Amino acid sequence: MKTVQDKNLLEMPIGVFDSGMGGLTVMREIMRQIPNEKVIYFGDTARVPYGSKSKETVTRFSRQIVRFLQSKQVKAIVVACNTASAYALNDLEREIDIPIIGVVKPGAKVAAEVTRNGQVGVIATEGTISSNIYTTYIRQLRPEVQVTGKACPLFVPLVEEGLWQDPVTDEIAKRYLSSLIDTGIDTLILGCTHYPLIRSTVAKVMGDHVTLVNPAYETARELKELLMEKGLFNPVPPQLGTNKYEFFVSDGAEKFVHFANSIIKYGILGAKVIQIEDY
Amino acid sequence: MKTVQDKNLLEMPIGVFDSGMGGLTVMREIMRQIPNEKVIYFGDTARVPYGSKSKETVTRFSRQIVRFLQSKQVKAIVVACNTASAYALNDLEREIDIPIIGVVKPGAKVAAEVTRNGQVGVIATEGTISSNIYTTYIRQLRPEVQVTGKACPLFVPLVEEGLWQDPVTDEIAKRYLSSLIDTGIDTLILGCTHYPLIRSTVAKVMGDHVTLVNPAYETARELKELLMEKGLFNPVPPQLGTNKYEFFVSDGAEKFVHFANSIIKYGILGAKVIQIEDY
Repeated sequence: MKTVQDKNLLEMPIGVFDSGMGGLTVMREIMRQIPNEKVIYFGDTARVPYGSKSKETVTRFSRQIVRFLQSKQVKAIVVACNTASAYALNDLEREIDIPIIGVVKPGAKVAAEVTRNGQVGVIATEGTISSNIYTTYIRQLRPEVQVTGKACPLFVPLVEEGLWQDPVTDEIAKRYLSSLIDTGIDTLILGCTHYPLIRSTVAKVMGDHVTLVNPAYETARELKELLMEKGLFNPVPPQLGTNKYEFFVSDGAEKFVHFANSIIKYGILGAKVIQIEDY
Repeated sequence: MKTVQDKNLLEMPIGVFDSGMGGLTVMREIMRQIPNEKVIYFGDTARVPYGSKSKETVTRFSRQIVRFLQSKQVKAIVVACNTASAYALNDLEREIDIPIIGVVKPGAKVAAEVTRNGQVGVIATEGTISSNIYTTYIRQLRPEVQVTGKACPLFVPLVEEGLWQDPVTDEIAKRYLSSLIDTGIDTLILGCTHYPLIRSTVAKVMGDHVTLVNPAYETARELKELLMEKGLFNPVPPQLGTNKYEFFVSDGAEKFVHFANSIIKYGILGAKVIQIEDY
């Protein structure tokens, strides 16, 4: 029989953070796959994007966010940002005593499993690509796999401008992806949380024979396993009237809520603005 | 005869700041038009862009930067960022006792002077457009002028991706500018410091009959006048061996220097990274 303390622990929320709005694709998968869990989402909209910034800066920002989430009594943390996962996760893991996972390892694992010809591509921000982190993780599992990375800096602004299906996005995708097509990859990781939103464009350019891996989906799966393994999985829904999902941002709540409602069909009513530098 | 104190004052540098790299187009004009002045440039590359962020956040960031520049003993400050000029300049003017100018007023003044048909367009970031600041200043000078604003969020990432002359930039420019063409403007303000870099694309789309106003150029002119008026203008070049131009950023010095050298033909050797939140 569970004690009161255990029950309270199970009901504690999961903390999810991203540089801004992209991490909502991860949040969406968590809501679908483990619908009993409460979630606190933080988007660092005052300092977005992270993808073009340095390891030191992204790590400093991530530490502040982890401190904020811990002040909210989260039972586990998901780094729902590829750049922060690439740059900061190793440090964060050592510094806190609750489970923390990123989006890179789950994506890398699936890519290593599904490739048949051993040629994997990764599209992501400049930061994630230059960190070589997908290559490192994939090679740990299958050293013979060849990994080719390609930074796609315009994809995030195109997504945020709403051009999810548009001739301009097609043209930019063709340019970014041509070098990956030339290498003969059969598996492509969507290594930035915005990219699932232009999945159909990427699929069209790459062709049917290339499997697209969405780390957002894999991360939610791995989170579920981790919660079960650690005895933190909540088997029952929160009580009626409980605020299941809470959203915090460092700037521009209204714009965030508007974008969030285009990604997550949940009727998000609001987001609170906090001053993240104070953490 | 000038006293020693006056001479020291004249030799003090001008502080110039921007959210990142765009303000270098203003810096370039200052270097051309008042070549005897020493300049300290700060680019907030850790928190760039400002254009999509709120007034409160942009003002908080701008205050920190002004404190940093004052710690460097600047004799005057140029807010070389349209969004910061739109949101923060009024507050900053009240808070400090050295001259400070932004890029908006000089651009608005020239636009009000040059329009013949009284129809002026402004292209800028979301922040600058939603502040309505160009409209406000132009109407103060000529109340009958009609001002039409258009936010162009993709221009900055396109410029930073190096697509200064490219069919994709042409296509995006056509979409953004079509509503301005329809209003029959004869004058268009390039209301974001990145835009002079795609001036030829904008000129091609708008046609010969539309005069483009570059606030960077006008700001350097106004700065010169202001320095002369306040007795701060330096008539002689700095001594040989003096470090005339210094660059500071909050992140990614190497990337900044690379971009800076594509804009300013001066052989910029380096930029120092500082932690701007500490100011």
